[in-house]
Amino acid sequence: MEKQKLLINGERLKTTIETFANFGRTKNNGVTRLALTEEDRLAREYFQTCCEALNMTVKVDDMGNMFATLDGTEDKPPIVIGSHLDSVKKGGRFDGVLGVITGLEVVRTLKDNDIKPRIPITIVNFTNEEGARFEPSMMASGVLSGKFEKETMLQKKDANGMVFADALREIGFKGEEANRLNEATAFLEMHIEQGPVLEHESLKIGVVDCVVGMVCYEVQIDGESDHAGTTPMAMRKDSLFAANNFIQEARKKLSVIDEDLVFTMGRMNVSPNIHTVIPNRVVFTLEARHKNPDVIKQVEDIVEDLTGTCENEGCQIIAEKLWDRSTVMFNEDIVKRFEQSAQSLAYPYKKMASGAGHDAQFIASYIPTAMLFVPSMNGKSHSEDEFTPYEDCEKGVNVILDTVLDLQSL
Amino acid sequence: MEKQKLLINGERLKTTIETFANFGRTKNNGVTRLALTEEDRLAREYFQTCCEALNMTVKVDDMGNMFATLDGTEDKPPIVIGSHLDSVKKGGRFDGVLGVITGLEVVRTLKDNDIKPRIPITIVNFTNEEGARFEPSMMASGVLSGKFEKETMLQKKDANGMVFADALREIGFKGEEANRLNEATAFLEMHIEQGPVLEHESLKIGVVDCVVGMVCYEVQIDGESDHAGTTPMAMRKDSLFAANNFIQEARKKLSVIDEDLVFTMGRMNVSPNIHTVIPNRVVFTLEARHKNPDVIKQVEDIVEDLTGTCENEGCQIIAEKLWDRSTVMFNEDIVKRFEQSAQSLAYPYKKMASGAGHDAQFIASYIPTAMLFVPSMNGKSHSEDEFTPYEDCEKGVNVILDTVLDLQSL
Repeated sequence: MEKQKLLINGERLKTTIETFANFGRTKNNGVTRLALTEEDRLAREYFQTCCEALNMTVKVDDMGNMFATLDGTEDKPPIVIGSHLDSVKKGGRFDGVLGVITGLEVVRTLKDNDIKPRIPITIVNFTNEEGARFEPSMMASGVLSGKFEKETMLQKKDANGMVFADALREIGFKGEEANRLNEATAFLEMHIEQGPVLEHESLKIGVVDCVVGMVCYEVQIDGESDHAGTTPMAMRKDSLFAANNFIQEARKKLSVIDEDLVFTMGRMNVSPNIHTVIPNRVVFTLEARHKNPDVIKQVEDIVEDLTGTCENEGCQIIAEKLWDRSTVMFNEDIVKRFEQSAQSLAYPYKKMASGAGHDAQFIASYIPTAMLFVPSMNGKSHSEDEFTPYEDCEKGVNVILDTVLDLQSL
Repeated sequence: MEKQKLLINGERLKTTIETFANFGRTKNNGVTRLALTEEDRLAREYFQTCCEALNMTVKVDDMGNMFATLDGTEDKPPIVIGSHLDSVKKGGRFDGVLGVITGLEVVRTLKDNDIKPRIPITIVNFTNEEGARFEPSMMASGVLSGKFEKETMLQKKDANGMVFADALREIGFKGEEANRLNEATAFLEMHIEQGPVLEHESLKIGVVDCVVGMVCYEVQIDGESDHAGTTPMAMRKDSLFAANNFIQEARKKLSVIDEDLVFTMGRMNVSPNIHTVIPNRVVFTLEARHKNPDVIKQVEDIVEDLTGTCENEGCQIIAEKLWDRSTVMFNEDIVKRFEQSAQSLAYPYKKMASGAGHDAQFIASYIPTAMLFVPSMNGKSHSEDEFTPYEDCEKGVNVILDTVLDLQSL
């Protein structure tokens, strides 16, 4: 008979989630805790207090990332657990913070059971994952992994002109470059799914094997802004009609490539945007995400082809690629361990891709990394309606705990 | 042999157009002369000076409308010529002001030729036709014709909170209700076409027999604002996709009703308008114009039907009629006289509808009224690019002069 699994304390986990939610809780029970604000500072200090109460050593690096380490019996690179404490404006109580709390609950459970780890355990809080106050998102993990240039990031300004470096200093979390996370045995990021798939399929755990690649275009269509009452239909150059044709054709062609492909025209601006004037300019984004780079290439071909072939209503159509990013594959060994833990705990799970970006995708470039998802009710996130049942959070943390114990044998 | 036609002075007409354009001329040779601004005041005073120099009596009514009257040898209701001196922001040198200048040039030509009219001739400048500073447009002719309530209009505010009545008083053009235009033999409004038809068909004159009726809807489509990366296509409620379907279907059905029908989706707003978020709300206008009320009824049926029948992508679609207006038919006798004048002057012309609104459509409710159009190059108006060749303006004024002389026999 297999020995009894070590399990976390679900009641304590729930309390911790709700305690952190008090730092920036909105009246609709969401959270506004933008990076480096007073709410963020309070959450950081509470996190530090919790860690110190567990005899962990808290260090802060030059980007404000926090690393709380529980020593191991051997001097090995740590197993790192964490995510981010910042939120978007009117975000939820789970996005990011749940990954940090996961670390706390894992360490607390070890303490409860007098388990001293062989390999040290570090809980991380990455600064400014959301990029909601200071763009870009995943700023600090981007600097750690060499994707972003430190000095450029430190000079980023918020909408009020406040400089990132100054804000970091003001809240007292400007640390030392020497404290950066340079090596680790593993990085485990638990996060809410931010999509409806797990709930829809009645699963409790998503074992994330990659963050999908994506491409984002901006399509600009230029026509003529003539009078809506006096210009016969045949003499118009209506950019909205042309945009409509483009989107219709794009949908037709993109829909048949692969069922896992997602594509969105999320931003659209019409000029001059007056009901009595024919629109002379429509600008919209078209972004698409898929794990397979060949699929993304097909999207690019379709978009670029449509600028020349779609019914343009006499307008000029330009599609500019704003950016793309490649699929990031997570560490196969950790993915397999996550699967085994979920199986051994008898939690229904699936292997899946992350359609959203996370700090883990940058950290994966130099540390063995994988992510774990728990269900998002109605797929909601970045919203006050964001919710993950506490029992589901608990299951996710149990998988992380089990995997951390499993990794101790490395 | 027919006697020599009396003709206006084209050179003087051009100079007058350019002189008025100096009141608010923009650096791109357009005009910004919003109602009741300093530019409007200067244009009004110059107009008054010109009229007084022609021995005309200038009166101002309670809405700031100006009426300059040249006495006739008989005490009959006047023949009224005119339009408006106000412009939109960065508008042109012809829209409105050309109709007022037409009156000046007609009276000047009579004076040149020592012609004393039997029926008095009045030149009118209607206040705030554009509605660009104080909504609604055609405000003052609307009050005269009983379409708008005077006290409500006097309390209208501009974007800075300035009250219409106060602005009117400040520029010194708050007059007496007793000075209103209550009866007239005829009202003749010459205006630029604001569309491309005359130029396209190489015609010089448009004899306008009606202002077309119209209907304007606001269509609101509500879906769900989920994450663009994590929500499978089949689980989305994308309001932009639904809007796209609606517009595509509407175009298909509206295009086959009647070739003179014009329809426009001029304003469209997408929420939350972020490239990584599926749009949860799209709101757009759909306006359509046609002379025949049966055609407008068909448009209404199609729009209302589509809210229930178009592929809605799981979204809710509501179409609200913002307003409609009926076709205004102009006076048949004046229309015939315009045609005869154009023919006798050998100017190529056509009878046409006005797709745009004008003061004449309100005045037509109580005074025999018709309009005359001259070509707009490239159909441009409400734009610094607005242009009508001076020779075309001249031809238009000649038709008005000829018709005024013709009407003297009434």
